[in-house]
Amino acid sequence: MIDLNSDLGEGFGAWSMGDDAALLEVVTSANIACGFHAGDPAIMRRTCELAVARGVCIGAHISYRDLAGFGRRAMAVPPRELADECLYQIGALDAFARAAGDRVRYVKPHGALYHAASADRAIADAVAGAAAVHGGLALLGLPGSELAAAAAAAGIDFHAEGFADRAYTPAGALVSRGTPGSVLDEESALAQAISIAVDGATEDIDGGRVPVPARSLCVHGDSPGAVAMARSIRDALAGKGIEIEAFA
Amino acid sequence: MIDLNSDLGEGFGAWSMGDDAALLEVVTSANIACGFHAGDPAIMRRTCELAVARGVCIGAHISYRDLAGFGRRAMAVPPRELADECLYQIGALDAFARAAGDRVRYVKPHGALYHAASADRAIADAVAGAAAVHGGLALLGLPGSELAAAAAAAGIDFHAEGFADRAYTPAGALVSRGTPGSVLDEESALAQAISIAVDGATEDIDGGRVPVPARSLCVHGDSPGAVAMARSIRDALAGKGIEIEAFA
Amino acid sequence: MIDLNSDLGEGFGAWSMGDDAALLEVVTSANIACGFHAGDPAIMRRTCELAVARGVCIGAHISYRDLAGFGRRAMAVPPRELADECLYQIGALDAFARAAGDRVRYVKPHGALYHAASADRAIADAVAGAAAVHGGLALLGLPGSELAAAAAAAGIDFHAEGFADRAYTPAGALVSRGTPGSVLDEESALAQAISIAVDGATEDIDGGRVPVPARSLCVHGDSPGAVAMARSIRDALAGKGIEIEAFA
Amino acid sequence: MIDLNSDLGEGFGAWSMGDDAALLEVVTSANIACGFHAGDPAIMRRTCELAVARGVCIGAHISYRDLAGFGRRAMAVPPRELADECLYQIGALDAFARAAGDRVRYVKPHGALYHAASADRAIADAVAGAAAVHGGLALLGLPGSELAAAAAAAGIDFHAEGFADRAYTPAGALVSRGTPGSVLDEESALAQAISIAVDGATEDIDGGRVPVPARSLCVHGDSPGAVAMARSIRDALAGKGIEIEAFA
Repeated sequence: MIDLNSDLGEGFGAWSMGDDAALLEVVTSANIACGFHAGDPAIMRRTCELAVARGVCIGAHISYRDLAGFGRRAMAVPPRELADECLYQIGALDAFARAAGDRVRYVKPHGALYHAASADRAIADAVAGAAAVHGGLALLGLPGSELAAAAAAAGIDFHAEGFADRAYTPAGALVSRGTPGSVLDEESALAQAISIAVDGATEDIDGGRVPVPARSLCVHGDSPGAVAMARSIRDALAGKGIEIEAFA
Repeated sequence: MIDLNSDLGEGFGAWSMGDDAALLEVVTSANIACGFHAGDPAIMRRTCELAVARGVCIGAHISYRDLAGFGRRAMAVPPRELADECLYQIGALDAFARAAGDRVRYVKPHGALYHAASADRAIADAVAGAAAVHGGLALLGLPGSELAAAAAAAGIDFHAEGFADRAYTPAGALVSRGTPGSVLDEESALAQAISIAVDGATEDIDGGRVPVPARSLCVHGDSPGAVAMARSIRDALAGKGIEIEAFA
Repeated sequence: MIDLNSDLGEGFGAWSMGDDAALLEVVTSANIACGFHAGDPAIMRRTCELAVARGVCIGAHISYRDLAGFGRRAMAVPPRELADECLYQIGALDAFARAAGDRVRYVKPHGALYHAASADRAIADAVAGAAAVHGGLALLGLPGSELAAAAAAAGIDFHAEGFADRAYTPAGALVSRGTPGSVLDEESALAQAISIAVDGATEDIDGGRVPVPARSLCVHGDSPGAVAMARSIRDALAGKGIEIEAFA
Repeated sequence: MIDLNSDLGEGFGAWSMGDDAALLEVVTSANIACGFHAGDPAIMRRTCELAVARGVCIGAHISYRDLAGFGRRAMAVPPRELADECLYQIGALDAFARAAGDRVRYVKPHGALYHAASADRAIADAVAGAAAVHGGLALLGLPGSELAAAAAAAGIDFHAEGFADRAYTPAGALVSRGTPGSVLDEESALAQAISIAVDGATEDIDGGRVPVPARSLCVHGDSPGAVAMARSIRDALAGKGIEIEAFA
């Protein structure tokens, strides 16, 4: 059994990004932007409505406050203040999720905050603290990360995610984009998706075997090719008899 | 029985405004800014914590998205989009109210949105719709306004507010600031507060008698004098045996 | 002789809009967004560099401060404050224009500000005042509008623009979008472009003749079809021996 | 001869900060906020007008784009993008400086950008590059910093500043706030101001002698006490026959 998650609702005002409607036919969990890196109230409402209509689980895709940088620029936000910024976003999205008939069920940090919360325990604790205070929401992130440790300490669930199209190091980290071989071709990505889902492991960039314990696979939708790829992954998993089901 | 309400949490980042701690000793209802005209997540958290500690009722003081103009500049926001912007703010504040042990209990529009929602039914319906969808929150506003009508249509409670220090026209509207006599001196304001609370009426600017049906009085805290005035009003009401109690 | 102008640089951060590079092969004047409705510093720099490389004249496409609404929502900004907001944007863009080897040569208000400055003299005066103080920049706008009157009063040049693909009323105003017949098909638009450029007049929606005194034609680039249309207009004008040349 | 500089124009919208009018009677150089950490167009205009009226030199106090954090939160902005953000701010302020009859004469980074540009050469180069491209503006910053090196490489002037009220380490760095003894009392600060201005050196926190080569002293105005202190420093310097004069 595996979940497919994707970033959704990442337009803002007059600007759109990705094909949310198409992706919502593919994924089981929607990481919905909350207005700090992308997403405005109208987009949040519509994305929640679509997700609920498709039976897709709603997660809060929280970020540093950085529209101009799409949340990709690390910011030295003091942890107490960061926890407040996280809770603000979760609460705002939850209002739309509830208006649509469901609620926010998990939290996944976005972009620079995702990286920071994976590597820095104080930041991870701020994110986990906000999730915990909002009814004990689960977290979605990298296996073995500081975020996982922070979730355990906060007494909330943590679900690990893997990546079909990214090469892993022997230590189980992602090979940095830019390094040759860091992004897999379609065929390899399909194989890796199945391998992670079935065996909880894949071939690392050096040809060895690396465990990737993942309850969810992250797929992208920022290009027509990406949506097609997400569909192929879903079909390949289904073809192997793997159940596609949300974790939350 | 009367409620005292005031605008609180109107700082932003490094900037502060008003003496929230002092006012929270005076009022029974706190209109807390939600980040669109003022208020950042840290301020929202601290203001909610203080309000809950003082037993003060929490309301969402929602606004047009206009930090640069403090929500005082009318904006032609389409009603559907406006309702979404309102719900976003309510949800964000509610997360802090709940973390502090209570919840948002009513909604009061701020500044230009207050004026627009008083006079324009489509705007009032957008505000009322957001309040209704968020668990049927009550609205606070001008008696006889379009907002009152919208609340009735949406099936939510409406509470009317009066002003101690503002002169009324014979028709029951506020005399525009700038007009001579529009702002009352302290003695007259105290008398008007008692008159509204006891009789539901006051002397209008022409010397006649005008009904002011108000369940709440709005007091200000943006200067040391304003806080002292708010305290005087509370003491004067108490001295007349009027119970000061939140409406929500 | 006629100028072709278009709105450019209207992305923001991770979001893009339109095909600026293609349009800059077509137009002679670029209305470049200045950060208030669209356009961030990196986009402004790149768009100025491209415009200078193509010999396209740079204009400041100034707006209300409204990223979330793309400057399409009217805002009640006091005129003195509005003039300051306009000058801020002009100055910011001018720095990039100068770094690229040219300078801002004219100002065109965007969206809701365009409409407001066409119809309201106080708003038009604020826009014209900012343009005048910045070295006496020219304005681009609707013929016969309040903006034209404000430019005259401020002692700066005004250039009128027409629209190839929009129907005109007998009074010379644009037929509102949404009204049947308000947007012309490609063939009619090409005919209207030539008619405006050659005769300074076109057929109105009732079949009469209406003067459209325009030194510039506004073309769009927000879709592949729009860019192709802009190219067709340019080719049609050139085919009639009309010189395509910037006004500023 | 020494210059006195201070941060000015740091309000935003309805929020004010510091007593600009009082400080402009004291300083010879005004670091004026440009809208990214503080300062809106109306405040920028008024501050420039006041500075020109007082004969105070105008500098652009540029920042990361972070109103919510007042520019105090470090941000990982790619250098090319950062240079663009700096130039945007310089250009915007320059428009108001010119409208007031002068122009921007130097650049001083604010808050987290000041610290980053002192310590990181790539960031310093981005700041210096923006200053250089805008007519070769001078930079104001810490002596011996990466910003000084970047100015030299960019071929623009660099002016070093010292602090009257902050303790120095034997290496010439500022003792971190929070460390006991990091902030001097008024008497010591006056002595240090004179020592820096006359001898280009002061007593370090260990009692030794440390060179502080400074063409300018930074004074604060964020409290009534701070303004009085700034005045005392100016009077003490004048009493020693030191000329107070802008560097740019």
